[in-house]
Formats: sequence, structure tokens, C-alpha cells
Amino acid sequence: MTDSNATRHKVFQELVTATKILLNEGILDTFGHISARDPEDPQSFFLAQKLAPSLITTGDILRFNLDGETSDNRPSYLERYIHSEIYKARPDVNCVLHSHSPAVLPYCFTDTPLRPVTHMGAFMGEAVPVYEIRDKQGDETDLFGGGHDVCADIAESLGGQTVVLMARHGVVNVGSSIREVVFRAFYLEQEAKALTAGLQIGKVKYLTPGEVKTAGALVGKQIDRGWDHWSQRLREKGLA
Amino acid sequence: MTDSNATRHKVFQELVTATKILLNEGILDTFGHISARDPEDPQSFFLAQKLAPSLITTGDILRFNLDGETSDNRPSYLERYIHSEIYKARPDVNCVLHSHSPAVLPYCFTDTPLRPVTHMGAFMGEAVPVYEIRDKQGDETDLFGGGHDVCADIAESLGGQTVVLMARHGVVNVGSSIREVVFRAFYLEQEAKALTAGLQIGKVKYLTPGEVKTAGALVGKQIDRGWDHWSQRLREKGLA
Amino acid sequence: MTDSNATRHKVFQELVTATKILLNEGILDTFGHISARDPEDPQSFFLAQKLAPSLITTGDILRFNLDGETSDNRPSYLERYIHSEIYKARPDVNCVLHSHSPAVLPYCFTDTPLRPVTHMGAFMGEAVPVYEIRDKQGDETDLFGGGHDVCADIAESLGGQTVVLMARHGVVNVGSSIREVVFRAFYLEQEAKALTAGLQIGKVKYLTPGEVKTAGALVGKQIDRGWDHWSQRLREKGLA
Amino acid sequence: MTDSNATRHKVFQELVTATKILLNEGILDTFGHISARDPEDPQSFFLAQKLAPSLITTGDILRFNLDGETSDNRPSYLERYIHSEIYKARPDVNCVLHSHSPAVLPYCFTDTPLRPVTHMGAFMGEAVPVYEIRDKQGDETDLFGGGHDVCADIAESLGGQTVVLMARHGVVNVGSSIREVVFRAFYLEQEAKALTAGLQIGKVKYLTPGEVKTAGALVGKQIDRGWDHWSQRLREKGLA
Repeated sequence: MTDSNATRHKVFQELVTATKILLNEGILDTFGHISARDPEDPQSFFLAQKLAPSLITTGDILRFNLDGETSDNRPSYLERYIHSEIYKARPDVNCVLHSHSPAVLPYCFTDTPLRPVTHMGAFMGEAVPVYEIRDKQGDETDLFGGGHDVCADIAESLGGQTVVLMARHGVVNVGSSIREVVFRAFYLEQEAKALTAGLQIGKVKYLTPGEVKTAGALVGKQIDRGWDHWSQRLREKGLA
Repeated sequence: MTDSNATRHKVFQELVTATKILLNEGILDTFGHISARDPEDPQSFFLAQKLAPSLITTGDILRFNLDGETSDNRPSYLERYIHSEIYKARPDVNCVLHSHSPAVLPYCFTDTPLRPVTHMGAFMGEAVPVYEIRDKQGDETDLFGGGHDVCADIAESLGGQTVVLMARHGVVNVGSSIREVVFRAFYLEQEAKALTAGLQIGKVKYLTPGEVKTAGALVGKQIDRGWDHWSQRLREKGLA
Repeated sequence: MTDSNATRHKVFQELVTATKILLNEGILDTFGHISARDPEDPQSFFLAQKLAPSLITTGDILRFNLDGETSDNRPSYLERYIHSEIYKARPDVNCVLHSHSPAVLPYCFTDTPLRPVTHMGAFMGEAVPVYEIRDKQGDETDLFGGGHDVCADIAESLGGQTVVLMARHGVVNVGSSIREVVFRAFYLEQEAKALTAGLQIGKVKYLTPGEVKTAGALVGKQIDRGWDHWSQRLREKGLA
Repeated sequence: MTDSNATRHKVFQELVTATKILLNEGILDTFGHISARDPEDPQSFFLAQKLAPSLITTGDILRFNLDGETSDNRPSYLERYIHSEIYKARPDVNCVLHSHSPAVLPYCFTDTPLRPVTHMGAFMGEAVPVYEIRDKQGDETDLFGGGHDVCADIAESLGGQTVVLMARHGVVNVGSSIREVVFRAFYLEQEAKALTAGLQIGKVKYLTPGEVKTAGALVGKQIDRGWDHWSQRLREKGLA
């Protein structure tokens, strides 16, 4: 294997493991997909062909340019432009995940903002932005991230943050590495679960801006421990 | 195998796999059953003999006419008329599922309508109809779909939609294929879970009529991805 | 094996399988126990020695008289008088289960009655009675069914019904057979889960007295299907 | 093996089993750690090196003094001072657990006190104290138990009780043995789940001070049954 092949193979392996982890931890179900920017060519990214996530192997990863196009003939996810537009808008982002993370969904169709309630959620910032497709596209759309314009608007709603919600649809997580995105997706789901319970039992005390900043810096250093743990859980179930 | 035998065998296999998927994904428990119209004779349909769903094999599938009667001597589900009356009323329907889908149950005994909150639920239409047995039968019934008259009323409440709730009892899903019904049953449960949480944390923004129509058309094309995914989960657990 | 040994062995086997089912379906945890009246001597009943339920085998079943005493030297559950006092008060009862059924617990310490919301819960009657230990014993007790007097009062609160809640403690289910009690314990948990969700989303429409009576008679005939299903689930997990 | 080695080995084994149980029962996830005071030297305690809990073996256990320092070169958890300061302040405590117990988290960021609702929660006392880091450290901290001063304050908030919550962070359980702490951590999670549901359905009747005292004494004698049960569950899954 050339160095370049080895680098690429490592990214493909991590994308497959990340998909398995996200399925096993209940973040992904039938739909959703995780991509990674090519470390050797920042103008392109890797994403699986159109398949149920549980079936993806390293042989299914395709290369796309930042317009979301590929020269591979195999079928592509319709929502690949969510990925391409974010890679275009955010040079610091090396991984994008789209999911229907179940505990996060209620924050995609209610007027209650998703905000961090423990140090593990500090990466969210003070509140998670919501992309409302109705604002520009009206209220008869397919609610779907299927076109360049819609996806450029999703990237704009994301701004400089780590996660954006798509109204009445789902979630987009971003980060500087595959492992960071898996970590953030896992804890976004946990924070949403905890907040939903908290809102029902009392008055919620959210993280302050200072806590968001200080706790976020600390927790961000622990992501390998998460990856090691979730990988071990795959092995225990015979899934890796 | 003759062509006819092969066709029938394929339907039987899909009914057994569908039952396993619905059990594994938590839609079915001890009760409930899924049937399919005979592709070679639209005046009859296939449904298992009276058994716990986890025990059903292809050898347990019986043929019924559209009055819900069979010439097979093995015991039949008492609720088979739910199936037969819907096949009679809806020539477009090729699969019927009756379940006690757990997250949907609260919408069977409260005054809150079950309505779609993400694109995945667009198949529901603007709101899911509820069959109230008390309206015609009074309030001393067994709450059960056991007779032709009650089941004809269930079919009438269903109208042209894809799902109807039976008050204080359960759920009926219909579709043009086994795979479509499994897909809809899975996402009905997910939508109900999300809505129940959403109603507790804020003001809910439901899909508009235009979104229901446009998103429904799009999502409806993805059902094989669901089937592939849930089948893979059966294989991972050694259940298929 | 004599006929008498064979009869007894069958009861012991069913008690062990029932315990495994109740653990696997999430009704029992570390605590709780199921007993059965001796079919050959209605003045005695069978109950395991004091052990974690997951460890019980047929060799651990002891015989008790209706005062809750045994001639066996192995340690007995402190709460055995719950069983003995109910067998004394209710000649129609052949099986008693004590559990901390998790979804039912909230109805043990709030003022909201547990009432049936679907046909599967009709066995509960119009509302489940609650035994309040404070009424006679004051508010400094161990909240525990540890004495003859407390347990006679639990039996009195149960009256002619199928389930009684012990305030701030747990649940007691009774029935005419082991299989019936397992069935009722499973659906009591499901009804409680559904009701808790329903109370949070809208106005609840409970079963009427007529529906309780008519649906209860119908559902009560289906208990073997439940037993077959839950036994199959044990086999699929290699637990039976 | 010398007697001393054998004693130490037994503690290491129990720490590893406790970690596996807490993972398997959903109390621990990626983070959190359990330690035990050295039975042969009360001025030191044992705690794993910095690792994901699912990876810990007996070879990973390090010895720390009551200032939280070790002569071992392997990496230590940053939060080890939570353990050391509690061992310093509470000579009766032989085991400390820090976790993000999911059902308990909502009580770490709302104004609703966590109080016992069944006999199993009597060990909590009348209400669980909350350590609010903002009181002394202001509202720009990392919310983290990373320094001696913060951890001494956590120990002070714990006082003579068995559990203390860290605002917007997590939980600390203590006890006189590893098994007791596992037992308390499990039932703290169950009590929190039940209370959260109860608060949503009606008016909650908490344990009285007398019930806390009397029930706590009784339940505290049953901890081996819990340990036996949870260990059996590990064996059933091939995890022990």
C-alpha cells in the first residue's frame, strides 16, 4: 500500500467504525450518514454510496468534490449536499454527520431551544441553531436537504457552531475529526434526553456563557476515551 | 416449484421476515398480525394461523377469502376481519398490520390527535383517524375487532388513509406492499415517541398540508433501505 | 417419578420459567418473588428460598404452610407472608407475585389511580387498590410486608381484585395460575407505561365498567399465547 | 500469594466487576470511576488508571494517597481528588463512585430535590444534597471536580450522607463497601426514574423521616442479593 492508500484506508475504516458506533448507540437508524474530508485533498470528501448504514463497508466509500458530485457510478445519497456545502463554508470542518437522533428530534419541531445542561454538552454553545426551511422555501417543501440552495442555507444557519437542527427533519453535527463528531453526536443525544426530563420536573439552570467556554475546552480533550469505549462495546457484541 | 408456488413462497417469506422485524424493533409483542393480499388472486389474502408472532414460520400461513373465512382447519385469529374488511374496502391495499405499537397507544385513549412532526411521518396525512367503538356499539363492548360490522366500521374510519387507531385497543397500518407497511409501522412508532416528548417541552409545529404531500412522496421511495437495515439487524442477532 | 412428584416438578419448572420471563421482560429485578399454591394440597404453597431471582432453579423451591412457615432449613424471603396471607384469604388464588414493576411504581407514591386504558388492562378492574401502611402502622415503618398483620391488611386491600399496590414499595399480582399472573404482570407494566404517557399529553378516556367486564373476559382466554411468546424469547437469548 | 497480595487482589477483582456491573446496568458510560480504600492501609485507596471503564482490568488499578497522588507513572483521572477528599473527610467511607447516572442528571440542573419515593431509596436520606460550584468559584468554571479545593467542598456538601450531586455535572455515591456503593448507585437511578415519572402524573408522597430511617436499616442488609443478581447478568451476556 502506498502512503496515500494507507491514509485513505484509515479514513475509510474510521467512517465504517463510526457508522457502527452510531447505530449501536442509537444515534443513527435507517437513515443518516457520516462523511470525512479527504486529508490529502481538502477540496473533496468521502461518503458511502446510498445504502442502509448497517450494510456499509470500506468498499462502499465514494469520493465527492465540494459541489457534492462524484465520478463514481454507484448511487449517491440525495442529501450529500448537506455535506458538500458545509465543507465549502467551513474549512475547519473535517467531518459531517446527518442523523435523526431520536431524543434531539423534539427540539426540531418545538419552540424550545436545545441548550447544554451539563459540562458534556458545552460543545453546543449557548443554544443550538435551527434551520427553518419555511423561511425561504415556503411551507410546501419536502423538508429535505436535497438542493444546493437549501444546503447552503443550512450551512449558513450552522454558522461557526458544532451542530444545527433542521426543522421537522433532523440534525447535522460537525467537527474537526470523525472521532470528535461521534463524541458530539453521542452527547448531544444524552443532553437532549436529560433536558427533556428536566423541563418536566422543574426550573432548568443552563450552562452560562463562561461555563460553555471553559467546560467545552476541557471536555474536548477526552474524545479518544469515548471512541475506545464505544469500540469495545462493538467488540463485546461481535459487531467489530 | 411452479411459478405460482414460487410467488406464494416469496410472500410467505416476506410475511415471516416482516413479523420478525416488527418484533425485533418493538412494534409487535404477544399480539398483533400482518397479512398480505394474494398477488395472484386479489379476492384472497394470507395470514398466519393463531400463534404467538415469535413462533410463526412459512408453514403457518393460511389463505382467507375477503369475508375472512378459510377452508384450513387450523385455528384463526379472532381479529382476522380487520384484515378482510379492509381488503374489501380498499383495492389499493395489499398489506394490513394490526399491532399494539407501544408509543402509539397513548393516542388511542386521549383526546390529542396523532399528527406528523417530521418528514418521516408524512405518510400519516394531516392527522391519524380514530375509530371509536362506543359510537355505534355502546360502552360495554370487549373493545375488540371481532365482528364484520365493527371491522367494516374500522375500514370506514380508515377511509383513504394509511393508518387508523382503534380507541382503547391499538393500531392498524395499511400499504401497497409488506415492506411499505413495515416502514410505516416503524416510523409511526418513532413519530409518536417524538410527539409525546415534544408536547411536554413546548409548542409543537406540525407538518403543513403541503409538507405532508411533498415530503410523503419523497420518503415513500426509500422503503427498501429500511427493509435492508432491519433485516441486517435480524442477522446480527442470529434471528434470520 | 410418582404422579405426585411429576405434578410438583411441573409446578417447580413453571415457577422457574416464570421467574426468567419476568426478569427478561423487565418486571422483576433483584427483588421480588413468585409462588404457587400446591395443586395437591391447597393448604400449602411453593416459593423459592431467599435468592436473587436470576439464580433460582427447581432445586431452590420450598414448601410453606398458609402461616408462611416451612420445615426447610434454608433461608426464606422475609416477605413470604404477603403470599401466605393472600392464599389464606383468597381460595381462588393459585399464584402470587410480588415485584417492583418499574412503570407501576409511580402509582405507588402519587395520588393518581392506576386504571386500565386498553382492553389488555381490563383485568385490573376499574382502578387498582393501594395498601397504605401508614393508615394503621404510622409513618415510621420499614414500608415492608414483613409481618402477619401487615400482610393480612395487604390481602384485605386486595379484596377480590387481581392486583394491589403497596404504597412507597411495590406491587402484588394474583391469579388462578402461574401463566395468568405472568400475563397480568406483563400487561400491568405496559398499561402503566401507556397511562403515564397519556396523562402527559391530553385528557384520558379510561375503560368503562362495562368494557372492563366484557374485555376482561375475552382477553383472559389468550394467556397461553403470551407464555409461548415470552418462552420463545428466552430461547432466542439462550436463557431457557 | 501472600495474605496481603490476596486481599489486594480481591479488592481489584471487585472493582473490575463493579465497573462491569455499572456499565451493564446503565449507570456508567464513557466516563466515571469507582475506587476503594485499601483495607490494609486506610491512608490510601485504589483507582484505575485513566481509561474508558469498559477496558479496565485488575492490572490497571493504581494506589493513591489521600492527597490523590500516586507514584505510578501511568495517567490518572483528573477527577481523582473527588475520591481523595472524600476518603479524607469520611473515615467510614471505603468506596467512592463518580458517574453521570442518566436518570439522576435532571436533578443536577433543576431546582427539584431528589428525594426517596420507595423503601429502596431510603439510603438517600430525606433529600440528596447538591454541590453548586458557582457558590464559591463563580459561573465561568469548567464545572469539573479537578482541584483539591473544589473537591473538599464536594466532600463538605456530601456531609454525612451517601450521595451528593454536582450541579450541571454528575453524581458521587459513597458507602462502606464496593457492593454497597453498587447497590446504592443502581437504586439511586431507579428512584430518580420513578420520581421523574411521578412528578408528571400527580402529587408525590415522599418517605417520611421515620420511614427513611427504618426502611434504610432493613434494605441495607440485602446488598449481596443485588451483587449476585447483577453478576449473574454479566455471566449470561458473556461479560464475566
